Amino acid sequence: MTSNENPAILIRHPQWLSRAVAMHKQQAYPDITERMQLVIALARTNIEQASGGPFAAAIFDMTSHRLIAAGVNVVVPNACSMAHAEMVAISSAQQQLQTHDLGTDQIPGMELVSSCEPCAMCVGAITWSGIRKLVCGAAAEDAANIGFDEGPRHPQWQAELQKRDISVITEICRDNAAAVLQEYTRLNGKIYNGRSSQ
Amino acid sequence: MTSNENPAILIRHPQWLSRAVAMHKQQAYPDITERMQLVIALARTNIEQASGGPFAAAIFDMTSHRLIAAGVNVVVPNACSMAHAEMVAISSAQQQLQTHDLGTDQIPGMELVSSCEPCAMCVGAITWSGIRKLVCGAAAEDAANIGFDEGPRHPQWQAELQKRDISVITEICRDNAAAVLQEYTRLNGKIYNGRSSQ
Repeated sequence: MTSNENPAILIRHPQWLSRAVAMHKQQAYPDITERMQLVIALARTNIEQASGGPFAAAIFDMTSHRLIAAGVNVVVPNACSMAHAEMVAISSAQQQLQTHDLGTDQIPGMELVSSCEPCAMCVGAITWSGIRKLVCGAAAEDAANIGFDEGPRHPQWQAELQKRDISVITEICRDNAAAVLQEYTRLNGKIYNGRSSQ
Repeated sequence: MTSNENPAILIRHPQWLSRAVAMHKQQAYPDITERMQLVIALARTNIEQASGGPFAAAIFDMTSHRLIAAGVNVVVPNACSMAHAEMVAISSAQQQLQTHDLGTDQIPGMELVSSCEPCAMCVGAITWSGIRKLVCGAAAEDAANIGFDEGPRHPQWQAELQKRDISVITEICRDNAAAVLQEYTRLNGKIYNGRSSQ
């Protein structure tokens, strides 16, 4: 890095994810189930490659149904507790499109597809991101079953997002998404968000 | 960037902040008011330099009272809606110390000093960060008075943090911190978190 770059934070994708995103950008995913299955496959690859936690998320263009950006949970390898899949996918899309607001009128509406319901931090981040729609796979209790805490989320988080014109759809392919969480436990994956239980 | 780096997100400090952090690391700040005044000064410089929003935050070692890392709001210049001051300070400290958990027993306890109460996203991020103590300057209503929304924050966010062994102190130098927010308005600074009011 040169002195005038002043990097504060650098978050890297696993190498396999950069390749997967480039490949999957080449086709459209008009069906919500197909979009979720793609995201669940990324979460599964993340645990199989031991490149992070059992979560993935992706931003899709709601008009063309094409993949814009994706993220997997890379908290531990990047030494960054905010590197949840949703945060990585949102920020990656914003920096690629060079706007902090994915809801700007200058681009099509954007959807966030996540393999699991968002935690407290990600609900807040979704509010500021400009996305128009959130689609979730596994439910909070599926994550809680393996020891991941959703944190101090607003009790009416879905209604709070909807008040801000962000529609929310839950439990798309829930069983498939939850199966990845179970598989993570079987592989003895690290549960690192458990401070509340200490 | 080389192909094996796979950058997903890169957030840069303003140049003046990197210099300020290097300078302020050279002394200890045993007094809570001094720590807050340093953070408020960073927020003020951020608006004077037009390098971001009117917010700053810093991580201090609770044993030595030395500055570990700082962040200012760089949402717009970095095209990244999650680049709130608290997120930048926390992640910057974690990456510098090479741990996703600032609460690990291998390092001293860490405190986050923020020029304003945290929004919904930052409350969640604080939960996962490992910090032991949060100190706030301006109150949520001071930010709301100039059009910044705290988002869908848990109604009992302070109690939720305290349940997780994170102590919370509010309204340290509140008037000075709020004055920076007022000054931002006077300078016609961009209010970009206002989707809820649309």
